[in-house]
Amino acid sequence: ALSLTTLASAQVKPEDQIRYRQAGYSFMSWNMGKIKTNLEGSYNKDQVIAAANAIAGIANSGMGALYGPGTDKAIGNVKTRVKPEFFTDGDNVGKIARDFNAAANELAKVAASGDAAAVKTAFGEVGKNCKACHDKYRLED
Amino acid sequence: ALSLTTLASAQVKPEDQIRYRQAGYSFMSWNMGKIKTNLEGSYNKDQVIAAANAIAGIANSGMGALYGPGTDKAIGNVKTRVKPEFFTDGDNVGKIARDFNAAANELAKVAASGDAAAVKTAFGEVGKNCKACHDKYRLED
Ligand code: HEC
Ligand code: HEC
Repeated sequence: ALSLTTLASAQVKPEDQIRYRQAGYSFMSWNMGKIKTNLEGSYNKDQVIAAANAIAGIANSGMGALYGPGTDKAIGNVKTRVKPEFFTDGDNVGKIARDFNAAANELAKVAASGDAAAVKTAFGEVGKNCKACHDKYRLED
Repeated sequence: ALSLTTLASAQVKPEDQIRYRQAGYSFMSWNMGKIKTNLEGSYNKDQVIAAANAIAGIANSGMGALYGPGTDKAIGNVKTRVKPEFFTDGDNVGKIARDFNAAANELAKVAASGDAAAVKTAFGEVGKNCKACHDKYRLED
């Protein structure tokens, strides 16, 4: 859950928390891109399953622990695009995070079925949740 | 499979391929760290399951596609630590990749059981495979 600070996070340096969360989002975006390519071109069921499982695995990994104290601003040369509101809008951030997890799990589920039309719908729902968070909580480039 | 260049990879710019593979490894290392913390301190079954699933999801995502043409050297300010041998030792790289995937899947499987001793063994096997690849194919910092 996004608001949980775990034991493990307490031991990760703030600059590494920023790096790890950016890595997680970045890797999800590669996998979202692969699913998009499959939906637009020829559909490879196994590639979509693998991509959806990577996204769900990352979505469920407890990334909230990577928003610990001191991670709201750049640390040395480790920049961050998180907005201050992320740390104060707990309820709304938690809601987006839960919706996002549910959408990512649904995408993994329908990917396994190989039904491209269902994957298209579920993929759209995941994308909506990425965007919902970015619109409110991520600074422009 | 590590030697496969997929349609999707053909459409990802070389500098982004480098960024995405680094992101994948980096996010796995955060999750390996969490499992280690759980094995050394108090064991939280759900956290270990989530971490193991993230690692397996990334391991199975077809990262071989992120080693396309032009990704063997730095591109502008996007540096890479991959050694040239990675691109010529196909058979051995493929073997390590397969062993690594198998170990990651085993870790996810035993994590679900909640048996900390079995997780410890499976975790060690995953770590061996990370190291096997780094020893041969990753430059020192
Ligand atoms: C709960 C909020 C939230 C959700 C859900 C979310 N993001 Fe983000 N994302 C952020 C924030 C905040 C940042 C800025 C992180 C930073 O710079 O510290 C970010 C950064 C990124 C980045 C830039 C990473 C980098 O290397 O700097 C990418 C790409 C990205 N997100 C893609 C995605 C995709 C794709 C999804 C959905 C599959 C997604 N995000 C879901 C909040 C979210
Ligand atoms: C099949 C080979 C292979 C396996 C398996 C592998 N790695 Fe790596 N790893 C590499 C290579 C090659 C690089 C350098 C990538 C680059 O700089 O382009 C790397 C880079 C990294 C980095 C630095 C990422 C960055 O931000 O620059 C970390 C951390 C890492 N690996 C951790 C791990 C962990 C943890 C595992 C196992 C859970 C693992 N690796 C498994 C080959 C591998």
